[in-house]
Amino acid sequence: MYYIGIDIGGTGIKAGIVDESGHILIKDSIKTGAERPYQDVVHDIADLCNAILDQMHLKPEQVEAIGVGVPGICDPKTGVIPFCTNLGWHEVPFIADMHKYFPGLPVYVDNDATVAGLAESVAGVSAGTQSSVFITLGTGVGGGVVINGRPYSGSHGVGSEIGHMVIRLDGEPCTCGKRGCFERYASATAIIREARKAVVDHPESLIMQMCENDLDKITARTVFDAAKEGDAIAVKLFNNYVKALAHGIVNIINAIDPEIIVLGGGVSNAGDFLLDAVREAVKPFIFYKTQPYATILLAQLGSDAGIIGAAMLGKQ
Amino acid sequence: MYYIGIDIGGTGIKAGIVDESGHILIKDSIKTGAERPYQDVVHDIADLCNAILDQMHLKPEQVEAIGVGVPGICDPKTGVIPFCTNLGWHEVPFIADMHKYFPGLPVYVDNDATVAGLAESVAGVSAGTQSSVFITLGTGVGGGVVINGRPYSGSHGVGSEIGHMVIRLDGEPCTCGKRGCFERYASATAIIREARKAVVDHPESLIMQMCENDLDKITARTVFDAAKEGDAIAVKLFNNYVKALAHGIVNIINAIDPEIIVLGGGVSNAGDFLLDAVREAVKPFIFYKTQPYATILLAQLGSDAGIIGAAMLGKQ
Repeated sequence: MYYIGIDIGGTGIKAGIVDESGHILIKDSIKTGAERPYQDVVHDIADLCNAILDQMHLKPEQVEAIGVGVPGICDPKTGVIPFCTNLGWHEVPFIADMHKYFPGLPVYVDNDATVAGLAESVAGVSAGTQSSVFITLGTGVGGGVVINGRPYSGSHGVGSEIGHMVIRLDGEPCTCGKRGCFERYASATAIIREARKAVVDHPESLIMQMCENDLDKITARTVFDAAKEGDAIAVKLFNNYVKALAHGIVNIINAIDPEIIVLGGGVSNAGDFLLDAVREAVKPFIFYKTQPYATILLAQLGSDAGIIGAAMLGKQ
Repeated sequence: MYYIGIDIGGTGIKAGIVDESGHILIKDSIKTGAERPYQDVVHDIADLCNAILDQMHLKPEQVEAIGVGVPGICDPKTGVIPFCTNLGWHEVPFIADMHKYFPGLPVYVDNDATVAGLAESVAGVSAGTQSSVFITLGTGVGGGVVINGRPYSGSHGVGSEIGHMVIRLDGEPCTCGKRGCFERYASATAIIREARKAVVDHPESLIMQMCENDLDKITARTVFDAAKEGDAIAVKLFNNYVKALAHGIVNIINAIDPEIIVLGGGVSNAGDFLLDAVREAVKPFIFYKTQPYATILLAQLGSDAGIIGAAMLGKQ
């Protein structure tokens, strides 16, 4: 069985044909051109779908469904996307518009982090589990919740926004209007923000040397690499980051208690250096200390997760 | 169809026979005597069940199942209760022990807040919904999550502990070993703690008059009543409480996005005074501001929720 998966981002749109095990059989991509009218983007998405179908010598009716991951949400009842970050979409009837191009095909849309979490639970590190929470640690922090093997976005489609759980009341202001959101402490942006502040008082830090004294060049990786070298400021920044991440993870365990928590996104490329520290930091914060709890693992699928997970939305 | 529901507390144990709609047909109670050996308590629970069965002229085999709510958790795979607050139970094989008295009957055990949430979703304020989160605002803060009409305690049975979500990193120390748990700000205990601190600097507060200058007499109700009268200190305490509660609620919306959030427990007896304030406080913190989100309501079933929800555990 074939499923089309589409991963819509602010810069590029990727699409692939995926089998029922979550393996990509063929994939292709186009530039988003987010500055263009919405209808033009939808037109190009349809063209992209047809292009990959042609390459596989498939007709649309030989495909089970089209699944789409968007940097936003889609109202599950109406098929309308109320708004889509980076794309300038507001209240667009996306599913209805896709049906104009593919009248017979079911179309499913979900949040990109939710979709990535679903991908990992079908063909990645959490494959075989019934419940998992995927955390994307990137510019922001996204969440993908899978419960009973299906993506879980809540009753109104606004759930799994774990980046906007407050972990520090009255803390750092967030774009969402609250203060102290998890995202403000567990994103790459947070690491960079704190590092820039710290090196002003501590120009002797290895971080300064690594970024060639240019604060704009500081990345999460700069800080982690300096921490690996034992730089005191970087170690402190890393420990603070891990502490905040661990608290967010424990909040997820206390609320949802999944089988597995998957760390993905750019920051997770730090690998075992990060994973080992997070696992240790979580331990003392577990409520039921003698009971088993979620295993924390690193994502496996990388940038393919968007296509795979989107496609698997159609595997109902 | 008949279901037995048992509500085990530190002071009393209540049991009832409940029909499939969640109506209590008969109920009775005994003192827990938590200082006694565990086996004696189980023996008395079995006697209590037999007593209510006799009063209804029923035999155990005419009952579908026995459901039990405990102030703790039960491992869903083993039927063992790892520990139970206020009862001194550690690693007790509760389900196996109940089967000794009622060999043919299925026995289900879950956390008391989870059970209360289930009760409201079957026969209370959230009846007819598929997903709801019940928050008990009492000495502590408990959570009962219902997803797809069934109680949700997670993969390891340690979920729905929303009282131990951290909302203020490095905040008030909690008995669980963390700092800044939701419970430290949204429980009756929190209101009392903050009120005792505040009136030391502001002995002119109406709170002092209402508690007859005895700090030990301050309750959540004292503070709320003084706030209703417009006492500045009490209003400030009330607003701080509402703010913390609203943040916890928003965390639940961002993670689980239930249809309904139910406020129960002693503090919720403040009724609309609290409810209206909480609803207003939640609004600006919602992430997807144009989308519908959970309706916040007050619990309806009061102290019967324990028996009803426990019984409904058996309605699989």
